[in-house]
Amino acid sequence: MKRLGVLTGGGDAPGLNAVIRAIVKTAIREYGIEVIGFRDGFKGVLEDRHVLLTESAVSGILPRGGTILGTTNRDNPFKFPVAEGRFEDRSEECIEIIRDRVDALIVIGGDGSLSIAHELALKGLPVVGCPKTIDNDLAVGQAKTFGFDTAYAFATEALDRLHSTAESHHRIIVLEVMGRYAGHIALHSGLAGGADIILIPEIPFSYNKIIDKIQDRLKQNKRFSLVVVAEGAKEVGGEMVIQKMIAGSDDPVRLGGIGETVARQLERLTGIESRVTVLGHLQRGGSPTPYDRILATRYGVAATDLAVQGQFGYVVSLDGEKIKPIHLSEVAHGIRKVDTEGELLKAARKIGICFGD
Amino acid sequence: MKRLGVLTGGGDAPGLNAVIRAIVKTAIREYGIEVIGFRDGFKGVLEDRHVLLTESAVSGILPRGGTILGTTNRDNPFKFPVAEGRFEDRSEECIEIIRDRVDALIVIGGDGSLSIAHELALKGLPVVGCPKTIDNDLAVGQAKTFGFDTAYAFATEALDRLHSTAESHHRIIVLEVMGRYAGHIALHSGLAGGADIILIPEIPFSYNKIIDKIQDRLKQNKRFSLVVVAEGAKEVGGEMVIQKMIAGSDDPVRLGGIGETVARQLERLTGIESRVTVLGHLQRGGSPTPYDRILATRYGVAATDLAVQGQFGYVVSLDGEKIKPIHLSEVAHGIRKVDTEGELLKAARKIGICFGD
Amino acid sequence: MKRLGVLTGGGDAPGLNAVIRAIVKTAIREYGIEVIGFRDGFKGVLEDRHVLLTESAVSGILPRGGTILGTTNRDNPFKFPVAEGRFEDRSEECIEIIRDRVDALIVIGGDGSLSIAHELALKGLPVVGCPKTIDNDLAVGQAKTFGFDTAYAFATEALDRLHSTAESHHRIIVLEVMGRYAGHIALHSGLAGGADIILIPEIPFSYNKIIDKIQDRLKQNKRFSLVVVAEGAKEVGGEMVIQKMIAGSDDPVRLGGIGETVARQLERLTGIESRVTVLGHLQRGGSPTPYDRILATRYGVAATDLAVQGQFGYVVSLDGEKIKPIHLSEVAHGIRKVDTEGELLKAARKIGICFGD
Amino acid sequence: MKRLGVLTGGGDAPGLNAVIRAIVKTAIREYGIEVIGFRDGFKGVLEDRHVLLTESAVSGILPRGGTILGTTNRDNPFKFPVAEGRFEDRSEECIEIIRDRVDALIVIGGDGSLSIAHELALKGLPVVGCPKTIDNDLAVGQAKTFGFDTAYAFATEALDRLHSTAESHHRIIVLEVMGRYAGHIALHSGLAGGADIILIPEIPFSYNKIIDKIQDRLKQNKRFSLVVVAEGAKEVGGEMVIQKMIAGSDDPVRLGGIGETVARQLERLTGIESRVTVLGHLQRGGSPTPYDRILATRYGVAATDLAVQGQFGYVVSLDGEKIKPIHLSEVAHGIRKVDTEGELLKAARKIGICFGD
Repeated sequence: MKRLGVLTGGGDAPGLNAVIRAIVKTAIREYGIEVIGFRDGFKGVLEDRHVLLTESAVSGILPRGGTILGTTNRDNPFKFPVAEGRFEDRSEECIEIIRDRVDALIVIGGDGSLSIAHELALKGLPVVGCPKTIDNDLAVGQAKTFGFDTAYAFATEALDRLHSTAESHHRIIVLEVMGRYAGHIALHSGLAGGADIILIPEIPFSYNKIIDKIQDRLKQNKRFSLVVVAEGAKEVGGEMVIQKMIAGSDDPVRLGGIGETVARQLERLTGIESRVTVLGHLQRGGSPTPYDRILATRYGVAATDLAVQGQFGYVVSLDGEKIKPIHLSEVAHGIRKVDTEGELLKAARKIGICFGD
Repeated sequence: MKRLGVLTGGGDAPGLNAVIRAIVKTAIREYGIEVIGFRDGFKGVLEDRHVLLTESAVSGILPRGGTILGTTNRDNPFKFPVAEGRFEDRSEECIEIIRDRVDALIVIGGDGSLSIAHELALKGLPVVGCPKTIDNDLAVGQAKTFGFDTAYAFATEALDRLHSTAESHHRIIVLEVMGRYAGHIALHSGLAGGADIILIPEIPFSYNKIIDKIQDRLKQNKRFSLVVVAEGAKEVGGEMVIQKMIAGSDDPVRLGGIGETVARQLERLTGIESRVTVLGHLQRGGSPTPYDRILATRYGVAATDLAVQGQFGYVVSLDGEKIKPIHLSEVAHGIRKVDTEGELLKAARKIGICFGD
Repeated sequence: MKRLGVLTGGGDAPGLNAVIRAIVKTAIREYGIEVIGFRDGFKGVLEDRHVLLTESAVSGILPRGGTILGTTNRDNPFKFPVAEGRFEDRSEECIEIIRDRVDALIVIGGDGSLSIAHELALKGLPVVGCPKTIDNDLAVGQAKTFGFDTAYAFATEALDRLHSTAESHHRIIVLEVMGRYAGHIALHSGLAGGADIILIPEIPFSYNKIIDKIQDRLKQNKRFSLVVVAEGAKEVGGEMVIQKMIAGSDDPVRLGGIGETVARQLERLTGIESRVTVLGHLQRGGSPTPYDRILATRYGVAATDLAVQGQFGYVVSLDGEKIKPIHLSEVAHGIRKVDTEGELLKAARKIGICFGD
Repeated sequence: MKRLGVLTGGGDAPGLNAVIRAIVKTAIREYGIEVIGFRDGFKGVLEDRHVLLTESAVSGILPRGGTILGTTNRDNPFKFPVAEGRFEDRSEECIEIIRDRVDALIVIGGDGSLSIAHELALKGLPVVGCPKTIDNDLAVGQAKTFGFDTAYAFATEALDRLHSTAESHHRIIVLEVMGRYAGHIALHSGLAGGADIILIPEIPFSYNKIIDKIQDRLKQNKRFSLVVVAEGAKEVGGEMVIQKMIAGSDDPVRLGGIGETVARQLERLTGIESRVTVLGHLQRGGSPTPYDRILATRYGVAATDLAVQGQFGYVVSLDGEKIKPIHLSEVAHGIRKVDTEGELLKAARKIGICFGD
C-alpha cells in the first residue's frame, strides 16, 4: 500500500481532527505511506477535491473541534442530490475516483456514512470505518464513540450554570439536550449535573409523576427543580413533539420542541415560574475532552492498522480496553438505546432522580 | 450603627454572593456590626423573612453564581402584586419592618430595585444601593457593573464552540445573546469570539449589507460566517421581533426571536445552511469571572463604608480605578447604550466586522 | 439496619463528595436509614467526632472537590501516632466506637485506608470499601477509580497551556505529573495533550533516545518539544530522584524532583532552553469531571447497597459497565502499573511518541 | 505607506496573536497596505527571516496563546549576543534591514522590547510600540496591558482548585505566582480566589503577623489557610529569596523560591502541615480571556492607525475607555507597583486579608 485516503462524513463531532491526525502520523511514521484527505465527505470525492495530508498539515489540530477536511450531510453517492427532490446513483463514479487516487479509504462517520461505506465495500472498495456519534447511540458492538464525552460534559456544565439561577429564583429550569432516539446525553449529564428529573425517549413520562417529585421537593423546602429533557422524550401515549423546520433544511431547528412544551406545562400545572434552555449545536463544538482525544487517537491508529493489514469492510471499535474490529454489516441495524433495566439507570433512581414514570 | 440589612433584587447575576460576602466581612471585621439578610428581595421584607449573616454563613460563596439570599422580579413594595393584575402600595409597611430590624439597608439590584431604593430613600429610609446588571446597560455614571464580564465571557466561549461547526459544515451560525435595549454583550462577545457580523439594537440592520459581507467572505474562500445578534436588534424600519410568552410569565421565553428570524432569512437569501443558538439563561449563571469577583467585592466593601458613614441615598460606583458614590436620583434615567461613534465600535469596523448598516 | 457510617481517608480526590452524597441519598430514599459521617478519617472515629448527614447536608456538594468530612493521612488505628515516631494500636477502641454509633461503616479511600478496612473486617467489623485513587494505580480488579479522569484532564489542560509557550519560544518544556509507581496520568495526559516524549516509571529512559527524538523534530523544523514526566520516572540503571522533604512531613514536596533534573539535562545536552513545571497538588483539586461525578455516584450507591445487603468485607468496583464487588483481601496486593505491551501504549508509539527507550 | 512590519519580543503572553491579527486586518481592509512579520523578534530581523501576513495567515489565531511569529529574550540589536558573555552593537544593520523591507515597524513587547524600539526611534526608524506584560507592571501611563487578565484568571482558578484540598486536609497551602517587582497578580488573584494571606514585594512581611492571622482563623474553627505569594515578596529586613538557576539560563527556574520558604517556615512555626505550588509558566499560556482578546485587538488597530498616520515614536495605551498614545520616552522609567494606599488594597484589608504587615 502506498496511499491511504480519509474522509469525514455526517455531522461534525469533537475528536474528528484527532482521528485524522492519528491516521496521518501512523501512516507516515509506522508504515511509511502517504495520506490524502477528501474534502466535505463523499461530495468532495465526486468533485475530486482532496489535499495531501502531511505531518505539518495535522500539526496542532488535536485539541480542535470540527474537522479540517470539512463535512456535509448531503453526500450519499448512491442517492446523490442533483436537484430539488431528485437523486442519482453516482456510486460507480465515486468508486472510480477513490481507486484512482488511493489504495484504501478510511471513512470516519456515523450511521449514515458507515452505511455508505458498507455498500461501497460490497461493491469491492477497500474501505475501513471509524465510528462517530456524539449521541452515543450508534450500535457498534459495545463500542464507545468519541464526541459523547465532550457533549455530555458541556451539558453538565450548562446544568451547573443553570443551577444557581434555578435556586436563586425558586424556578423550574428545563434543559433540552440532544437525543432524538436515545437518552444517553440526558441520562449522563443529568446524573453528573444533579438533575432532579430526567426525561428520555426510552421512558415515556407523565406530568403527574413529575409534579409529585416537584411537590416532594417543596416539602423538603427545596423550591427549585432542574429538569433535563432529551429532544426525543415524549409523554405516555403521546407523539414526539413536532419541531419547526427551517425551509429547505433537513435538520429541524430545535425551537418549540419538547423542552418548551415541558416548561410551559409545568408552569401551568405547578404555578412555579419555569424556563427552558435549548443547548442545540453548542453540544457539537468545542475542544474535545481528554477522554475523547485519546479515544479518537486510538481509533485513528487502529483504522490505519486495519487498512494496512488489508482487513477491509470492518469498523474499529473499543470494547473495554481492547480494540476489536466489527464487520460493517453489523453496524447500524438500529439504535443503541439506554438500558432501562441497567445498573446506571437504577443507580439514578436510587438517589431519587425521577424519570417521569 | 449596630445592624445592617442587605437584600438582592431583580434577576440573578454572577457576583451577588461576592457582594454579600464582602458586606458581611467588612461589617464584622472593620466595623464590628451585625448583618442580616432579607430573603427574596422586598417580598421577603414584607413577609419578615430574614437570616443572620455570620462569617461562616458566607464562607465559600465567593466563587458561586446566584444569590444565597434568593431574589424575585415581583417585589415592588409600592406596587405589590396581590392578585392577578391587582397591586397595592405596601411601602409603609416595608419601611416599618426594615426600621424594626436594621439601622440601614443595602439594596443590591438593577434598574428596578434601585428605583425602589430611591423611592424608599425619599421617604426617609437609610438606604445604600449597589448596582448590578449583566447587560452593562445600567446608567450609573461611568460605572462598570459586575456580572457583565461573566456574561460576555460565556457568550465568547459559545462562539468558540460554534466556530468549528460553522467552519466544518460551511454554514452560517447565528448566536442570539442578551441585550433588549443595548448591545454590549453582543459587541464584546462578537469582538472576542471573532464574529463576522454583529447586530445590535443601536444600529438597525439591513439584510443586503449582511449578505454583502457573506459574499465578500465567499470570495476569500471563507465558506462560513458567524453572526451575533442581540435580542433587541431590528431591521431598518422594522420592529423588535415579538417573542412568544409563557402564559402568565413576565419574562418572554426567547424562542422564535430575532435569532431565528435572521437565520431563516439568511438561509433563504443566500442558500447557505443556517443554524441558530439562543443562549438565554446560560448567560446569567455560573461562577463569576475573577474580574467580576473583584468588582463585586469592592462594591460590597464600598457600600458598607457608605452605610456606616451615614451617606445614605447613594449608589456605589467604580469610575476608572476609584469608587465614587452617585446619588440614587441620577441612576436609571434611561439605558446606557453602546456608543456607535465610540472607539471600540470603530475598531470593530476597522477589522472588518459588519454591523448590517 | 438503622444507621450507616461513612468516612473518607487518605489524600483528597475529586469525587469524594459525590460518593458521600450518593450514600446519603440512597440510604435515606431507598432504604430509609440514617447516615452519620465521621470527621477526618479514623482519627475522627477515635476522637468520636461525627455529624448526622441529612439530605440538606449533602445538597450542592456534587460538583465540589475535596471532602466535606475532612481527611488525613495519619490515622491508622492499628498504628496510631502518639508522639514523634511512636505509635499505638488503638484498633479495638476504634471498633468499639464504630459499633456504638453505627451498624456498618463505608470506608472511602485508597490503598492505605482499604488495608485498614480489611484489617477491621477481619476483626469482625461490618465494613464496605469504596476505592479512590487519582493515580489510577489501585489494583482493584479492572476497576476504574474516580479522581483519575479529573487529574489527567487538568494535566492535559496544563499541556495545552504550555504548548503555546514552548512553540513561541522554541523551548523544551517539561511537565512533571503525579505517579510515583505507575505512569497512568503521564501516559493519558501526554496522549491527550500532544506530548512528544512521555517518561513513566514502567519504562526506564535514556537521554540518548530522548535527544534523538528532539533532533528528529528539529529536522522537521519543529523547534520545540513537550515532555511529560511522571514523578517516579527514572533513567536506565538509575534511582528514583530523591526529593527534598519539608521537615516533619510524610509527603515530599515535589521540588528538585525528576522534572527539574530532566529539564536541566536536556538543556545541557541539546543547548535548547528548557523549562519545568511541577503540577503538584493542583492535580488533586477542582470540580470533578462529569465522568468522575457519575463514577463516584455509582460507587456511593453500590456501597450502600452492599452494606444494606450485609455483604461486608467487599470493595465496590466497576468492571466495564457493571458494578462487581471485590473482596477486600484482593485489594492492594501491589500497584496497577501501565501495561507496557498494551494497546494504548502501542498506539502512542505508533503516532511517534517517544518513551525514552 | 505600502508595507508595515511587525514583530513580537520578550516573553510570550496571551493576546499576542490577537494583536497580530488586528494589525493585519486593519492594514489590509482599512488602509489597503501589506503586512510582513519578522520571526523571533529582532533576532529574526538580523537574520532577515520574515513572512507575508495575509488574512488567511491570521485566520483562527484570535483565541490562541503564544505568538505565531515566535519570540525570544535574547535579541537586543544594540547588545546582540555573539558568544558566551560577548555582545555586539548590530543596530545599524537592524535598521537597514527593516528600512529595506517595510515602511514602518510595530514592536509588540514589554519593557525590554519597547526600550529597544525607543532607541531605534531615536536613530530615526519609523516605529510604533504596543505594550505587553502579563505582570501588569509596565509603566505606560495608566494603561492596561493584555495578558494580565488571563494570568490572574488562571492563578484564581488554581486557588479554587487548592481550596478544597486545603480545607479537606486542614492545611496551609501556599501558591507562588509571578511578580518579581510588583504584586499585581498576587493581589488580584488573591482577592478573586479568596486568599487569607497575600504577600507582595511592595509590603515586606513578618511571620508573626501571618501566624496571628492563622491563629485567628483557628479560633473561628477554620483549620486551613490559603496564602498567595508573589515571587518577589520578602520578609521585613530580608532579601529577595535567591532562586536556583538552570545553568546557562537567564531565567531562573522558580524552584526553591519564596513559596517553598514560606511554606516551610509556616509549617515549622504553626505545626500545621503546609504545601506549596509554583505556577510558573502556566501563567503565560492558554487562550486569552475575552477581556484580553478585546484589549489586544484594540491595541492592534490603534497601533496600525498610528503607523499609517505617521505618528512614530509612540506606544498605544488604553486610558479608561480611550486609546491614548504615549511617547516611547515615557515608558519603562521604572515599574508600576501596587498602590499600597490605593482603594483596592484597602478593600482587601477591610475584608480581613492579611498582608503580613
